[in-house]
Amino acid sequence: MKLYGYWRSSSSWRVRIALGLKGAAYDYLAVNLLQAEQRTDDHVARNPMGRVPVLELDDGTHLRESLAIIDYLDATQPEPPLWPELPLERARVMEMVQIVNSGIQPLQNLSILLHLEAQGVDRKAFGARYNQGGLQALEALAQAAASRGRFLYGNRPTVADICLPPQLYSARRFDVDLTAFPRLVEVEASCAELPAFAEAHPDRQPDAVR
Amino acid sequence: MKLYGYWRSSSSWRVRIALGLKGAAYDYLAVNLLQAEQRTDDHVARNPMGRVPVLELDDGTHLRESLAIIDYLDATQPEPPLWPELPLERARVMEMVQIVNSGIQPLQNLSILLHLEAQGVDRKAFGARYNQGGLQALEALAQAAASRGRFLYGNRPTVADICLPPQLYSARRFDVDLTAFPRLVEVEASCAELPAFAEAHPDRQPDAVR
Repeated sequence: MKLYGYWRSSSSWRVRIALGLKGAAYDYLAVNLLQAEQRTDDHVARNPMGRVPVLELDDGTHLRESLAIIDYLDATQPEPPLWPELPLERARVMEMVQIVNSGIQPLQNLSILLHLEAQGVDRKAFGARYNQGGLQALEALAQAAASRGRFLYGNRPTVADICLPPQLYSARRFDVDLTAFPRLVEVEASCAELPAFAEAHPDRQPDAVR
Repeated sequence: MKLYGYWRSSSSWRVRIALGLKGAAYDYLAVNLLQAEQRTDDHVARNPMGRVPVLELDDGTHLRESLAIIDYLDATQPEPPLWPELPLERARVMEMVQIVNSGIQPLQNLSILLHLEAQGVDRKAFGARYNQGGLQALEALAQAAASRGRFLYGNRPTVADICLPPQLYSARRFDVDLTAFPRLVEVEASCAELPAFAEAHPDRQPDAVR
């Protein structure tokens, strides 16, 4: 498989973690978002949204949207499972996933912030605002589930945990004070102990810029 | 069950369609977003994000985030299934769901538009921009799957179809020209023929304002 991604793209990072948890081998192909490589004809042919990540299967099929890719990986390589089995537990994990996926991430996406900045909006304040609000809700749900284990929902990582470190990394870039979210920071540390999470970190990618 | 929602909230509308497709009985409790009722202590206790929809189960459990609620309904009342069974087909549907759910909807949410308007951003142009871009990608994926049937992916409605009519309704409010998206409009018409979709329309809700 080939993963088209960008080192700092939080949704690319999610897919790298999932690939690592599944023990799946893949080639990493960097798409430089700062040079708008995601909007080239070649990339738009892979993904009409003009975004990363895109997973290319061995038969050339392209999968787009991080949660769709992760769902596919979980369905085709069921061990270890990335969702709890019981419907209510699945829903609790998906609530957390969606707070990040639709409640925070889209509102601090680089292309959107640049568009707003061109109209005079303080890009950093805007990104910080939605990180702050979403993480506050996520912390409340995480606290409610804290007795279940060392991850966001139990003792093994789920898709909610996959979404967490990329979002906290982003929040720090917007100077959000994470001391208000002790449970999230604690779970982030549990995640960092696992090789799949450690190896997926942006700084470990070949296109990382320091 | 009780559904806390708002007539024009697109994510509340998604859940109403899913409840209808499952044939589930529920009481509808309106939360007036224009009067900020979603930010009252009572509602934030139901959903720390301070948003609709929230589904209250008969035992008092609260579920939040439309896709988490729909996943729960599909897991607990499996007929008719709202996702295809094969992993690749599921992923194709989820790509479409996520284009709407994370690619468009968050960027034209009322509270965000009001926040931007207060900073001098043209709220209608901003909402139109992300509807336009996302629907263009969605049309491409829908065209690629058009031979499969009269819905977005096959001959029965999936979660992608559940997300479609609310998003097109919203796009029209932003004066997006939908003639560029003929397949989406065609599928919307297929959806409207089903009672579950017709009965979920905002105009049919008790809190509708005309």
